[in-house]
Amino acid sequence: VTVYLVGAGPGDPGLITVKGLELVRSCDALVYDRLVSAELVDEAPADALRISRDAFGQFEINDLLVSLGRRDLDVVRLKGGDPFVFGRGGEEALALAEAGVDFEVVSGVSSVSAVPAAAGIPITHRSVSSQVTLVSGHSPEGLDFTALAGVSGTLVFLMGLAALPALAHGLLAAGKQSDTPAAVISCGTTSEEETVVAALDAIAEAAVSLRGPALVVVGDVVALRESLSRRPVGRTAGAATQSALG
Amino acid sequence: VTVYLVGAGPGDPGLITVKGLELVRSCDALVYDRLVSAELVDEAPADALRISRDAFGQFEINDLLVSLGRRDLDVVRLKGGDPFVFGRGGEEALALAEAGVDFEVVSGVSSVSAVPAAAGIPITHRSVSSQVTLVSGHSPEGLDFTALAGVSGTLVFLMGLAALPALAHGLLAAGKQSDTPAAVISCGTTSEEETVVAALDAIAEAAVSLRGPALVVVGDVVALRESLSRRPVGRTAGAATQSALG
Repeated sequence: VTVYLVGAGPGDPGLITVKGLELVRSCDALVYDRLVSAELVDEAPADALRISRDAFGQFEINDLLVSLGRRDLDVVRLKGGDPFVFGRGGEEALALAEAGVDFEVVSGVSSVSAVPAAAGIPITHRSVSSQVTLVSGHSPEGLDFTALAGVSGTLVFLMGLAALPALAHGLLAAGKQSDTPAAVISCGTTSEEETVVAALDAIAEAAVSLRGPALVVVGDVVALRESLSRRPVGRTAGAATQSALG
Repeated sequence: VTVYLVGAGPGDPGLITVKGLELVRSCDALVYDRLVSAELVDEAPADALRISRDAFGQFEINDLLVSLGRRDLDVVRLKGGDPFVFGRGGEEALALAEAGVDFEVVSGVSSVSAVPAAAGIPITHRSVSSQVTLVSGHSPEGLDFTALAGVSGTLVFLMGLAALPALAHGLLAAGKQSDTPAAVISCGTTSEEETVVAALDAIAEAAVSLRGPALVVVGDVVALRESLSRRPVGRTAGAATQSALG
């Protein structure tokens, strides 16, 4: 294998997988996303090539991975969360497959479950929700709100906060109950985490001061937070995280 | 913190998080699920108490965690996948919170994304699916097939294989197209993995020889497997796994 598509996890550097960290520590080239923590980038060997994805478009990144892979380097493509859950890892994998470059996907902890967990919200809970719909909410005008309001269980949206009023309005207009509990979590699993909880018809106003990236959870599981977040659920102190990578 | 609810990941022991493995390696007591790999259980200190969850019902496990936590032991509750994604971790967390025992959730790599990834199927893919619905399919008679057939994007069911014919029939009767690509993956991310791909109206018959636990993926992303699985996607050789935990 030449190119590893590795999930870095949701923010806390201790939530990378054992296999993922080992690959970072032995790579020749590390291509990383902006949302990946600096502590993880620092785990690459001192003489490894480090390339921030920021400067490139998706097609350029695909080409870069193919070209690094063809030079027979051990390449780690480190992506926030999980490469195959809203991570565009599939596009990079397809480009590598088409070019005949060997690759392997190393799954990561996805933000869609870990960020709510760290805020005290299980996205499934017996007798409350046995179903979850995960949605890329960056373009709410393209969403089928009737179907989303009709599907049972929890809804989780990965999105910029600018889209929150349109999202809440779309769900309410499609018949979702106005008192459905909702939460907005910004910078989840990091020390900057901020969480706001309100009814669906009040959530956009309540979250107006938060900043992105954000995750929005809509459903009865949000109400569990009151019981579960009195304890330190999933918050990682800096010291614990450093030790996890030590 | 006294009790850690830790996700062990989907099967491959290298897919536990760095933080999760560190907690296992330093715990006083390890309470683990049947599906957790023996390699991970063996990482607990030699003098740690090891308790298989098998012999207990859910209420007994809740009580056991409370009682171990009250004795001020460092307890790791190691669960397959992610504790808060169909993992009943919320129930254990609530029992601990109600008893006043400190706990922390350490998220894990969920089977719902990692098992399809290891079989060459990204559950989201640009211009194919930007939405995923995750369903506990153990009791298909309780599912709202009309809503499930109407929601766009990928469907992922965690289930026993005995329920597969009822699941496929329910989706088809509710109007899901008969040629929708479907995959059944048994023992995902382990060396025993078996994957069968067929159209939705043929999947139950095609998968008749597989055994559970299984994960069923329904949607156009399944068609990407043909391109992505020619390369060794996400398969972990035994040697690599051992080195990952070394």
